[in-house]
Amino acid sequence: MISKNKLKELSKYKTGKFCDQDDVFVVEGSKMGVEALMSDFEITTICATEDWYINNRTLIRKKISPENTYEVNDSDLERITALKTPNKVWMLLKRQLSPAVETQKNQPTLVLDKIQDPGNMGTIIRICDWFGIRNIVCTPDTANCYNPKVVQASMGGIFRTNIIYTNIENYLDQCHNNNIPIYGAVLGGENICNIKLNDKNIAIVIGNESKGISPNVQQKITHKIMIPNIGGTCESLNASVATGIICHEFLSK
Amino acid sequence: MISKNKLKELSKYKTGKFCDQDDVFVVEGSKMGVEALMSDFEITTICATEDWYINNRTLIRKKISPENTYEVNDSDLERITALKTPNKVWMLLKRQLSPAVETQKNQPTLVLDKIQDPGNMGTIIRICDWFGIRNIVCTPDTANCYNPKVVQASMGGIFRTNIIYTNIENYLDQCHNNNIPIYGAVLGGENICNIKLNDKNIAIVIGNESKGISPNVQQKITHKIMIPNIGGTCESLNASVATGIICHEFLSK
Repeated sequence: MISKNKLKELSKYKTGKFCDQDDVFVVEGSKMGVEALMSDFEITTICATEDWYINNRTLIRKKISPENTYEVNDSDLERITALKTPNKVWMLLKRQLSPAVETQKNQPTLVLDKIQDPGNMGTIIRICDWFGIRNIVCTPDTANCYNPKVVQASMGGIFRTNIIYTNIENYLDQCHNNNIPIYGAVLGGENICNIKLNDKNIAIVIGNESKGISPNVQQKITHKIMIPNIGGTCESLNASVATGIICHEFLSK
Repeated sequence: MISKNKLKELSKYKTGKFCDQDDVFVVEGSKMGVEALMSDFEITTICATEDWYINNRTLIRKKISPENTYEVNDSDLERITALKTPNKVWMLLKRQLSPAVETQKNQPTLVLDKIQDPGNMGTIIRICDWFGIRNIVCTPDTANCYNPKVVQASMGGIFRTNIIYTNIENYLDQCHNNNIPIYGAVLGGENICNIKLNDKNIAIVIGNESKGISPNVQQKITHKIMIPNIGGTCESLNASVATGIICHEFLSK
């Protein structure tokens, strides 16, 4: 059972303001809940239906003390959820942003230049998870990775990627100093199908949904690339689709 | 100038119900507005700000009679828009669904098995536009291509693709009878990187976001494929990202 006061307290996390203030984020739904239990993230609160609690009690007991776990029913969940249809579990987790890029051999780092749509951001994190890319370096004005829409769209990728918000121009300068090639899709770039990577220790820059890669960042690109535009009538691909195609082309072969 | 009564009449198209009833759909925003003017779709109403009207008057005059064109200001637009921030123009267009697949040589047909998210649906239409795929055959419960979110996410692709809602199992039976190979991503499929297509006259089936390709449809697949899962921790890719990667792999080389 959960008290009305506790429900009221937790419902404030529907808005990003209190999540920012308390340095936490919300994870919802049965599948994402299990991912959270198996992650190395600290869970501060779990509200779950009885059946979900029973099915996952071993994982839950390992991860969180009983006084921070509440059994709820569907109408309790409706009071705290940000989803249209809540699904068995709602959790609060401590944010775990990294200050630095982690060493990862023979894998690219993805560099996001002002990706603004939370759906795109989450989908890009999911793509990194799929391709085993650990580091995502973002401009400070890229969508907040702890926005509930980003978390949901990442499909658990949020727990397995290392996301750094920083000045990407400085980061790309460091890449340059360390002889790490910097790839980015710009007008007149080389067809990605013709590029064979021997060393996958590269940076891949993905530009903003409507403006592409900003001029200052374009200057840092050492390898201009393009995805062939077969139809010829469409101006651009969605940012996350372009990310998926570039990662597949560079990493699947 | 536009009358209050006219604004009230047009504001009903914020909900899908009246669009369905009148067999129309809404297009909004400066860029999509220009795409609509250049398309072969019939435009029944245009509400535009003075500057947008002036910039596009030649196209507008060719396409629609003056009595169906209204000059509006930003607060008028706010009354009829479904967007958070309306952008210069709002249009009503006649729907133009095709009953049949159009002949297109050496290009795939995309077959959508219950794609439900409007964002995914719009992004898939944009991908088809990018790769020059004309025909998209969908189950009747696939997202409505005239949903405003689909229209916006298609970035004009809605005007250049031929979308057919039908029984896809019957359609795939026809493909089979005409010796058209049917590709679909399923467990244990062949790595798409190892497939070289000589004839691109194929069908590519894309499955539902959470359930994948339904069992009845899976039985129709003649060529099972898979996108290599490099990371190994992530269960699946987003439906539109998977579509982009498959189309790129099959069509860009």
